[in-house]
Amino acid sequence: MTQKLRIALAGLGTVGGGVIKLLDANRDLIERRAGRSISVVAVSARDRTRDRGVDLSHTEWVDDPMTLAARDDVDAVVEVIGGADGPAFALARESLNRGKAFVTANKAMVAHHGLELATLAEKSGAALKYEAAVAGGIPVIKGLREGAAANQIGRVYGILNGTCNYILTTMETEGRDFADALAEAQAKGYAEADPSFDIDGIDSAHKLAILASLAFGTRLDFPAVAITGVRDVTAADIAEAQALGFRVRLVGLAEAGSGGLFQRVHPCLVPTDHPLAHVAGSLNAVVAEGNYVGRLFFEGRGAGEGPTASAVVADLIDVARGEYGTAFAMPVERLTALPPAPTGERRGRAYLRFTVADRPGVLAEITAAMRDADVSIESMIQRGATADGGVLLVMVTHVSAEHCVTDAVARLEGSPSMLRPPMLMHILDE
Amino acid sequence: MTQKLRIALAGLGTVGGGVIKLLDANRDLIERRAGRSISVVAVSARDRTRDRGVDLSHTEWVDDPMTLAARDDVDAVVEVIGGADGPAFALARESLNRGKAFVTANKAMVAHHGLELATLAEKSGAALKYEAAVAGGIPVIKGLREGAAANQIGRVYGILNGTCNYILTTMETEGRDFADALAEAQAKGYAEADPSFDIDGIDSAHKLAILASLAFGTRLDFPAVAITGVRDVTAADIAEAQALGFRVRLVGLAEAGSGGLFQRVHPCLVPTDHPLAHVAGSLNAVVAEGNYVGRLFFEGRGAGEGPTASAVVADLIDVARGEYGTAFAMPVERLTALPPAPTGERRGRAYLRFTVADRPGVLAEITAAMRDADVSIESMIQRGATADGGVLLVMVTHVSAEHCVTDAVARLEGSPSMLRPPMLMHILDE
Repeated sequence: MTQKLRIALAGLGTVGGGVIKLLDANRDLIERRAGRSISVVAVSARDRTRDRGVDLSHTEWVDDPMTLAARDDVDAVVEVIGGADGPAFALARESLNRGKAFVTANKAMVAHHGLELATLAEKSGAALKYEAAVAGGIPVIKGLREGAAANQIGRVYGILNGTCNYILTTMETEGRDFADALAEAQAKGYAEADPSFDIDGIDSAHKLAILASLAFGTRLDFPAVAITGVRDVTAADIAEAQALGFRVRLVGLAEAGSGGLFQRVHPCLVPTDHPLAHVAGSLNAVVAEGNYVGRLFFEGRGAGEGPTASAVVADLIDVARGEYGTAFAMPVERLTALPPAPTGERRGRAYLRFTVADRPGVLAEITAAMRDADVSIESMIQRGATADGGVLLVMVTHVSAEHCVTDAVARLEGSPSMLRPPMLMHILDE
Repeated sequence: MTQKLRIALAGLGTVGGGVIKLLDANRDLIERRAGRSISVVAVSARDRTRDRGVDLSHTEWVDDPMTLAARDDVDAVVEVIGGADGPAFALARESLNRGKAFVTANKAMVAHHGLELATLAEKSGAALKYEAAVAGGIPVIKGLREGAAANQIGRVYGILNGTCNYILTTMETEGRDFADALAEAQAKGYAEADPSFDIDGIDSAHKLAILASLAFGTRLDFPAVAITGVRDVTAADIAEAQALGFRVRLVGLAEAGSGGLFQRVHPCLVPTDHPLAHVAGSLNAVVAEGNYVGRLFFEGRGAGEGPTASAVVADLIDVARGEYGTAFAMPVERLTALPPAPTGERRGRAYLRFTVADRPGVLAEITAAMRDADVSIESMIQRGATADGGVLLVMVTHVSAEHCVTDAVARLEGSPSMLRPPMLMHILDE
């Protein structure tokens, strides 16, 4: 174990550059902690000419990342290309087939193909590590795979996308509209030019599916995640939620129970005294509830060059130490296949926002729909004229079955009283 | 690795009983995650007759815990006896000498003898694991040893004692006196009959010394921790701190820099928007600041049967998986010996509380002492008659060298204007 760990790096974007900088800046400390030095012997990237602020003069450049997996002078391949399929996936398969350790930050690939890759890793005895794929620098993969391993975890949830959290908390602190906050996030580099992957909740869903598998010992099931993004959250929603004692967060939530595996990404109302309510800006946070440990809360920076590189190199240190085993905390064949839980039977409180015509009988119509759907109202706020000339009506329901709440909303669908489609957000309670 | 891991348990108090319950309740899941089953083959405890609510009919009882280390049918010894020296330490040495894995919840022993034990473990190749020794169920030893391993950590700090935090937050939410809140903590089982180990800060100091070694790669140096407990914190301190935008927490803080290793346990003022300000009741929390990952925050239950057992069994799962290495993240000989940093040169804001006689010239006397010590005042509150007939004067200083603030206080020592000794608390800023 005193030989150096020789790595190849596929991809030299922000994260790849960060990995090289980190390995260089903290070289001595990493060597002491890993028990041996870690050195980059080869890299592949599309553009060789771009200045990345790192010294690559002693590193071999190759054009085809697939050749990295075949090199005898490489012990571990680090993939930071991205994309669920294509070159990243091909490289992963080839590396693991050849028995090379594979370290990745690629949440989409792990969410879609994690079990196939873990099976390859088991066959060849290679390490498959992906700490950077979920919540950036927060060691939450390790926290679930190892730290909370003694527990049956009933629920795991969190704020898994810094872009959405930045937008929502900017709307909250500055009273701004969604479009406005998104534009600022783009200007500051917190959101992509095409932000749909983040704001439509797909990125959070990838991460949630991975967390669920680790937390519950269940087979990864990304297609079963119910996903709603944050596009429809308005400044009014955030203001009224605050008036009612809540903050709005995009929450990925997974539960395992006798009804099956429940996985949902959805904008939620979070009580202001809940730890997630204090997670501001681009931070990420994860909560896991174990039957012995109780509630564990992890918070930190979920993206960016430094935090992601920190997680990638932590994985490499585990590989260098030989402290790794199965990728999903147990052999793939021992993961349970839980069917998706029917969401309608879940019980909880809900937030509803209606924008309605300002005329007699509308409140009676809405409250009748709620009554007929067997939903009772805990609190309600009505505000005068909105920008579109209507009346804003927000309410929080008592604990109800979710199918009752969706039934209430369905009863009002198409009603001429509704100036805009109603907004439904679930409430995250204890 | 498919043979079962056979463990012996020394001590059957709350934690020991919890370990047996957990291993039983989560047996199947643990076997899937550990790759093999974990079974208790022998126990030792002083009282065989006490009903612990666990089935020990298939477990051998021995009187002398030392014999557990010598048994051929034991792979790992779990020590939950407690005490820095005595039987716990003897058992640790004997187990590690014989190459048996040793798992402990004993913070005092690790703080005092961790390096000696780690050296023995290195010699015999045995595992030495102590996740339960710091912050109970929160996987913060793993978080520092592995999760943040790629980082140079500049500062690690946290709320490391649930008893003190319960007392301080009870004083905060209910406006009660220290003695009152302590009595309630004792009644609820959060504080011992003799609470001095907790409330005088010793327990926090043990944990801080361990965290500092892991965070910085430095040799454990418990004797160098400066310790002040919470006995002198009054209801007035907490109320005035709140009025100034702070909460009072007992914070263990360690920093590594060119000046050396700084370690201090001290009641601190924490800004209300800081994550530690939201840590309530008996929870624990740890913050680590890495040069790549930024600020990591971990929170959870720091003591009690379930959380402590969770951490002990997580260690056993690591042992069963073979995923362990050096106890302090690197071989003992590679840990740096940093001298204690001189505290006086540290800069920060401070809180001062004076209880003074109600007569002309007292404020001038205090402000002159501050001026002569080169400390300037950021904010000040004066309140009328206190219970002892004096005037309460609290102030927050601007950022100053700590030796200036202690100098200011020293200048007022013995002054007939002071009805009570002044109270100094440091402020935890970003």
